[in-house]
Order: sequence, then C-alpha cells, then structure tokens
Amino acid sequence: MASVTHQTALTQFVEADGVRYAYRRFGAEGTVPLVMLQHFTGNLDNWDPALVDALAAEREVVLVDYPGVSSSTGTAATNVAQTAQQMIAFTTALGLEQIDLLGFSIGGFVAQDMALVRPRLIRRLVLAGTGPKGAPGMHSWRKDIETHARAEVPTGEDLLYIFFAHTETSQAKGVEFLGRFLARTEDRDVPSSLASRNAQYDAVLEWGIPNHGALQRLTGIRCPTLIVQGEDDLMIPTRVSHLMAGLIPDAQIRIYPDAAHASLFQYPTEAAKDVNEFLG
Amino acid sequence: MASVTHQTALTQFVEADGVRYAYRRFGAEGTVPLVMLQHFTGNLDNWDPALVDALAAEREVVLVDYPGVSSSTGTAATNVAQTAQQMIAFTTALGLEQIDLLGFSIGGFVAQDMALVRPRLIRRLVLAGTGPKGAPGMHSWRKDIETHARAEVPTGEDLLYIFFAHTETSQAKGVEFLGRFLARTEDRDVPSSLASRNAQYDAVLEWGIPNHGALQRLTGIRCPTLIVQGEDDLMIPTRVSHLMAGLIPDAQIRIYPDAAHASLFQYPTEAAKDVNEFLG
Repeated sequence: MASVTHQTALTQFVEADGVRYAYRRFGAEGTVPLVMLQHFTGNLDNWDPALVDALAAEREVVLVDYPGVSSSTGTAATNVAQTAQQMIAFTTALGLEQIDLLGFSIGGFVAQDMALVRPRLIRRLVLAGTGPKGAPGMHSWRKDIETHARAEVPTGEDLLYIFFAHTETSQAKGVEFLGRFLARTEDRDVPSSLASRNAQYDAVLEWGIPNHGALQRLTGIRCPTLIVQGEDDLMIPTRVSHLMAGLIPDAQIRIYPDAAHASLFQYPTEAAKDVNEFLG
Repeated sequence: MASVTHQTALTQFVEADGVRYAYRRFGAEGTVPLVMLQHFTGNLDNWDPALVDALAAEREVVLVDYPGVSSSTGTAATNVAQTAQQMIAFTTALGLEQIDLLGFSIGGFVAQDMALVRPRLIRRLVLAGTGPKGAPGMHSWRKDIETHARAEVPTGEDLLYIFFAHTETSQAKGVEFLGRFLARTEDRDVPSSLASRNAQYDAVLEWGIPNHGALQRLTGIRCPTLIVQGEDDLMIPTRVSHLMAGLIPDAQIRIYPDAAHASLFQYPTEAAKDVNEFLG
C-alpha cells in the first residue's frame, strides 16, 4: 500500500441509501482515517497531490465525491445539513467508527454539521478556508469571485483567481499547484455537472443567510479543532476563521501569509505538517 | 512639553457631573489624543512608562482615574455602561471632540461601550487583553487569578502572577516591568480603595454573564480596531480576542508569544510600535 499515492489510488465505490459513492482510500493503515471533504464543485482530483501525499505518509486518507458530484450517483443536496447526513451515511457504509475530518470551504460547512450531529464519530476536526453558518460576510461571494467560481467550465485562470492571493508570489505558487493537480492522467475523475454546481451554490447561500443566533452552534463543537486560513481570503473572509477560533471551545488557528482561499494548496508541505502535528 | 514623561507628568484635575477626575496629559501635541483606560484597580501609575512614553513620542496621551478610583472623586460604577458614560463625560469636560481610545482589560470593556454609544467620538480603537460582553469564558476569573487580583494590598508577586506567563522568560520581563512602574517617586497616585475594587469586580461579573446575543454588539463597532493579546492570557481567555476580531467589521489582531494578560507591559516597545503604526 505504501506506494499508492494520490496519483495512483484507484477510484472505489460503496453504496449507501441508494447512492453509489466514489472514493479513494490510501495511506498509512492502522490509523484513524482522515476523511477529506472537498470544495465547491471539486471532485476527487481537485485536491493538491503534494498535500494529500504528505498527509497519507502518516495516516490513512479517504477522498470522496459528494452525492450527485462527478463520479458519485444520486442528487446533489441543496443544503449543508443534508450533505452532512449523506457523508455520515458514507462513513457508516465504509464501517468507520471514528474518523478525523478535514473540510475545505463548503467541505468545512459540512464538517461542522457532521461534528454537531455525530460528535462521537469525529475525533479531531480541521476547518480550512471555511466559515460558520450565519456569520457576517458569509452570505454569497464577491461578484468577481462568484463569476470565476460559477464558470461553466472552470479554467486554470479561474482557479488562480479564486484560490490564490492576487500577488506575484502567491500566483506563482498557484501555477505550481495547477501543474500538480493536472498531472494525473489515468482513471481521472469526471467533471462535476452544472446541476451539482447549482445545488451546491444553493447550499452556500442558505448557509450564509445572516443569523447571529446560529453562531452559538460553534460552542457545541466538542472535539479539538484546527482552523487554517489564508491571510486574505477573497471568497470567505479570513475574519470568520477568527470567529470560529473564538467560539469553538478547543480550537487553534493558523493563518498563512500572502495566501487566499486555497492556503492548503499554496503551502502543501507546511499545511500537511501542521495538520499531521495536530492529528498526531 | 517634549521633556514631560510618564514619570514627570503632573496630575491634573477636571470636573464633570460632580466628579473631579484625576488625569495626566502629555506627549506630541496637535495629534488626535489617545485616551488610555486602565485595568482592574489600576490607577495613573499602573501603566508601563516604557509603553506610554513610546506612545507619547508620536501622539498626545491622556491617562485618567475612573470615578471613585484612586485620586478621582465620586463613586466607582458597578457596571461597564455607567463607567463608559463617565468616561464620555470626562472627554467632554476636556473639550475633546475626537479621540483614539486604548482600553486594557476592564478598560477594554469600557472602550467597547464608548465606541457603541458615541461612535463619532472614537477615531480608532485599541482593545488590549480584553473581551466582549457575554462571551464564553468571560464570567469571572479562574480561582487562582481571582485570589491574586482581589488581594487587599496587591504585591509585585500578585502582578507577576496575573499579568505575565508562568514561564521563566515572561516572568523575567515582568520583573523588569515592576522596576519601571515603581520608579516614579514624586506625585505618585494614591492606591485605589477596596470599595472601588469591589465595584469594579461587580462590573466584571456583570459584563461576563453568558449572553450569546450580546456578542452581536461587536458588529456595531464601526471604527478601525486593533486587538492585542498575549498568547495565553490566564485572566481573559485569548480566544475571545479572536472572537472580537471575527465580529468587529474592521479589525486586526496581534497575538504576542509567551505572554499572558499584560502583553502590553511585557513588550512595551513592540506594542507601542504596533499601536503607533495602527494609529498613524
């Protein structure tokens, strides 16, 4: 198993509640598996191989397509709570009794809901480039970010615009990321559909409806939590990571400099080290 | 005026609403004055001269005793809202139309209320070692901290325990601070009374009563705000600084390493530089 990597791991399938989930599972066996929940419209290929392989060197990782997204069958949920239930069903179908959970962007929304409705399932939580339900600044995206994020066929340029800071240094790191994530040629995942994009966008907007009371939900996340975010995220305001660090009882926060939404993909080595240390 | 320092500035008095306020005002004239609001039981002498002089090199500073505390007459308020009204009356009595405002600990509670009830008075706000009304973890102090903070005659040992991290390096910085703040011999302020200590303790507890809804007040602080805090404050949990940074719309946060409640007094040079840059 040691030679299986993000680029070579086979796509597998498991069925739960009528959905056939596409997933990839690899890395150091005998550890609490780290389930990784993907960003808006992302599929199994959209992770940074450098990040995932560095994580997989120390723990088992599980990548998965949400229902209705890319190679998973079913219908994409239009709200986060339903997606969380689907991901819980997926972990149950795999026979996992305890997991570590990393959610990036909308994946972080889902991860928060999973931690709240299945506290005993989650040992430790990593929230990356994400924010809490109802927080100020979470209701929809900046117009320019929305345009790039909802592109019918997102290009590398769209990803650079959304994911990386608008500085020469960050953009250069972004180009390196594009090279890594496009490197796999065999058994590549299929693109996500416009229907799943639209459903996820509904979920994003519903999650962001201003609701100060809903912030109190964060005080119910009982597991140790690591919050990571770029210093100036253009998609989800960086300050909501501070808000999560302020209300989740056992939280640490790590802000990466000169970075935007995808700090995980800009600093894959550092981020994997921080996550591995936190989970270790 | 340039030669007047924290150690030589005369105590002056101004009257408002039947209270005779003791204050000291010095530093670079022609700037927006920086009013500094003191911590629990603290008086005009309890600031770090190294901090205040570094601030005064670039701006006018105004130190003041709350009503009923030390050399100010009147009765100490048992809640923060009333103290804020008193401090507004004090600034009016001095004829100040716009101020910068730095609040440390309970002074930061008062500063938040002032920013909310007199938004046009405050140009920029610095919140140091403080937290928001009703936040988790704000209701009273740890028993050991409370014992040292409420000592009838606080000693240097009490201050070291409350203000500095329980590490050799931080404690050594604390001893240096004690030397600085005890250096003034002439026209020293008088100690605060037990009555004012008890009133302030009531105000601290009232402010900390758990109230998730009250956190929304932070979204109404419209001025640019700098939040500074030690990495592991034993008196006011450091995470509530992140909470403030998450909800105050235009906020920056600076966490000082190996520091506790009085990071301002542990790193007077760095903190003055950060505050001067923010206000500049």
